[in-house]
Amino acid sequence: MKQMVFRTAITLATIAVLTTYTVTQTKSRTKTQSAAAIRAVLDAQRDAWNRGDVEGYMDGYERSAETVFVSGDDVIRGWQTVTDRYKKNYNTPERMGTLTFSDLEITPLENNAAVVFGRWHLKRSGDEPHGRFTLVFRRTKAGWKIIHDHTSSV
Amino acid sequence: MKQMVFRTAITLATIAVLTTYTVTQTKSRTKTQSAAAIRAVLDAQRDAWNRGDVEGYMDGYERSAETVFVSGDDVIRGWQTVTDRYKKNYNTPERMGTLTFSDLEITPLENNAAVVFGRWHLKRSGDEPHGRFTLVFRRTKAGWKIIHDHTSSV
Repeated sequence: MKQMVFRTAITLATIAVLTTYTVTQTKSRTKTQSAAAIRAVLDAQRDAWNRGDVEGYMDGYERSAETVFVSGDDVIRGWQTVTDRYKKNYNTPERMGTLTFSDLEITPLENNAAVVFGRWHLKRSGDEPHGRFTLVFRRTKAGWKIIHDHTSSV
Repeated sequence: MKQMVFRTAITLATIAVLTTYTVTQTKSRTKTQSAAAIRAVLDAQRDAWNRGDVEGYMDGYERSAETVFVSGDDVIRGWQTVTDRYKKNYNTPERMGTLTFSDLEITPLENNAAVVFGRWHLKRSGDEPHGRFTLVFRRTKAGWKIIHDHTSSV
């Protein structure tokens, strides 16, 4: 009888350890997958910008009237509003220049949200604006999208 | 027999509707509770600042070496580093002034994470610096804490 209780205890303990291990592994794998998916969105944004494709760049943002763009003390709301503004302000390859992102830190918050901190740099013939950005990403039906962008410029 | 199948179907449908309703209600209540808890953290920060209590103000941030503070192009990492800097730079009531937060928008991302967007304003005898902030909050064992702060100043 004692032997059987012992065996049962060992079996239960093994199941508990394996379950914890599997859950941890799955969580870790999910986080790695999320980070990779988010990095792909940022790469696609950079590539779109550098071929003069504003719509393609904007595809990284959630197509919502509630998407928030903060730049210094300036706040713009809504995907369409920002897209229109970008199309107006960056209407030549010279104005768009070459965009790079660096020092990206992707922090998954939970399964469906993440914060990304990094640097941006725009190389143009006349100037090289650059700075830091904090992005809040959400996993939507259309994939990972930015819902909040707070950018600082130098 | 048909009658019984029908009754069973009705019962199952009712259970499904009630379950969905309860889950939705619970989610909504959780979001409201989260927003209230986060607002309380910000109120406590403001109150601590305005009584000259830097440690109390810093209690709103996660006590971690990975907590990130972005101000323009300036990045500081770590709760202790920022606490030390604040204690050094804001060592008189005149320098601390009176802090207010306004236009707070608290967006729960999931159960344990939220983004807060708002304005800050510091009233001092000599100047009135102000601006926007984006905060990423995480629910920790010690309650809701800021893990990432991106602040713009004017």
